[in-house]
Amino acid sequence: MTGGAGFIGSNLAHRLAAYEARVTVLDSLLPNYGGNLFNLEGVRERVWLTVTDLRDVNALAYLIGEQEIIFNLAGQVSHEDSMTDPMTDLDINCRSQAALLETCRHHNRSVRIVYASTRQVYGRPQYLPVDEEHPRSPVDVNGINKLSAEKYHLLYHHVHDMWTCALRLTNTFGPRQLIKHARQGFIAWFMHQGLVRGEIQLFGGGAQLRELTYVDDVVNAFLLAAMSDAACGQIFNLGGERRSLAELASCIQQLCPGTTVTKVPFPADRLRIDIGDYYANWDKVRTMLGWTPRVSVEVGLERSLAFFREHLGHYIT
Amino acid sequence: MTGGAGFIGSNLAHRLAAYEARVTVLDSLLPNYGGNLFNLEGVRERVWLTVTDLRDVNALAYLIGEQEIIFNLAGQVSHEDSMTDPMTDLDINCRSQAALLETCRHHNRSVRIVYASTRQVYGRPQYLPVDEEHPRSPVDVNGINKLSAEKYHLLYHHVHDMWTCALRLTNTFGPRQLIKHARQGFIAWFMHQGLVRGEIQLFGGGAQLRELTYVDDVVNAFLLAAMSDAACGQIFNLGGERRSLAELASCIQQLCPGTTVTKVPFPADRLRIDIGDYYANWDKVRTMLGWTPRVSVEVGLERSLAFFREHLGHYIT
Repeated sequence: MTGGAGFIGSNLAHRLAAYEARVTVLDSLLPNYGGNLFNLEGVRERVWLTVTDLRDVNALAYLIGEQEIIFNLAGQVSHEDSMTDPMTDLDINCRSQAALLETCRHHNRSVRIVYASTRQVYGRPQYLPVDEEHPRSPVDVNGINKLSAEKYHLLYHHVHDMWTCALRLTNTFGPRQLIKHARQGFIAWFMHQGLVRGEIQLFGGGAQLRELTYVDDVVNAFLLAAMSDAACGQIFNLGGERRSLAELASCIQQLCPGTTVTKVPFPADRLRIDIGDYYANWDKVRTMLGWTPRVSVEVGLERSLAFFREHLGHYIT
Repeated sequence: MTGGAGFIGSNLAHRLAAYEARVTVLDSLLPNYGGNLFNLEGVRERVWLTVTDLRDVNALAYLIGEQEIIFNLAGQVSHEDSMTDPMTDLDINCRSQAALLETCRHHNRSVRIVYASTRQVYGRPQYLPVDEEHPRSPVDVNGINKLSAEKYHLLYHHVHDMWTCALRLTNTFGPRQLIKHARQGFIAWFMHQGLVRGEIQLFGGGAQLRELTYVDDVVNAFLLAAMSDAACGQIFNLGGERRSLAELASCIQQLCPGTTVTKVPFPADRLRIDIGDYYANWDKVRTMLGWTPRVSVEVGLERSLAFFREHLGHYIT
């Protein structure tokens, strides 16, 4: 798997190791991204960890040759970073993905690839709930590059008969998430503030709706996709429970007494790439893959906060 | 302008030089692409030609600083090449464009940029005629990268208040086109075969419809877009006259007696990225910019073939 020391990748690695699968964990461990060696604590002796950048094409050819499935999770996930440094986002989220697919085409054309795409490809919803046919009009560089990479994956299916599939993730949260800075999604930063009894700031009042998925459910989706012949060449929205940002802040405040919640005006640079309300129609993944999320937002947050409290020094420095 | 020694760029350079504009022509002159020094014959002393690759960010910062308008025409245009060498297509059509926009953002935020996009972003038409709202589902790597670059242009308008605009070109033809090999569009290759009294092969019978624009009309569209305040932040289809491939072959055969036309089965690799019939709805550019193509296909082909006959050694070697 790529991005295997990151948030979702490492949770998937733990699950696969429990199933006694043969797992190669590839991660670049780039500073300030999601890769964190501690995420693999407890499975290090059961997986092969290789610190490799997807941009290193020579290494890829070697590593990809024998895989049956690639869970393709590597990526730069910060929308904000993509706007200040678009070239790096392009290299990581688009160029590396093209290189990975080219390497598979030349060295392992029969591998199954499940790509972690994102609701960000839709941009501002033109209608709700957002289904897979909704126009793709990303509002930031990250969304453009993720969309491009998703299109590459499907193109390699259509043109080169390769087995590819994409899951469009919504806001995922859970243990092993990067919560040390504010640039990787509001939910991570809200949990951070809860853990340090800090201040949760709600931009513009916090009425915006989001759909949240607990990481174990996302892991289930990746496994179901990889195991299902019907998933080949398909794109699936993931979904979960809808909550407003204010509701989430309040839930975290209850789980972490002492946290304050304040409403602040929307910063101009954030407002420009904000998408308003979002929630998905995910009938397709339910009917075709039999996937349903099982962990509620409240239970998920409780589990996440318990994990972070136990290992605080590894996630907040 | 970028790609200024190429087909459309050089025709635009000739026009601008006639208007006594101050013109900087940037071209990488990469072998096998459209750049051809002979294309600038007659205007070399009236424009500044700089042989620069858009991937050279340091050079860009210097060159971009003083421009008022960038006609952004640089690109790799072969669909076939993009499938065999996707990384190069990505670097040229997507990464270089992101670098150009970043450079403008930092060094010349008030410049007007007119980007040469393509009907290829639509992929196989889901309905005809194709308007600007038609879903974008490119069928080849070239289409994905051009779409990405187009999205970057519009994003830099929405987020950074820059003046950008994109024209989605359909099949353009005319003097100074690259006709020496078969990888840059059928019309160029048909003209090549006509000029050498060779054989025009029609894949699958040649019933597929295309919409053709003579290069002088495309040049008009670029000038109108750059001069119109209403074009800022907009995307426009260009259009022209509809012809089947068989009709075009027959027209060239009449203009070049001795040329043969044969029907051959569709090669498998080409069929997979073929888009079937295409023609556009271009009401938007007509109503908003007042653009209408003026040169018919037949007159355009006659002019083109006359130009190539006069300068054959510079275009067919």
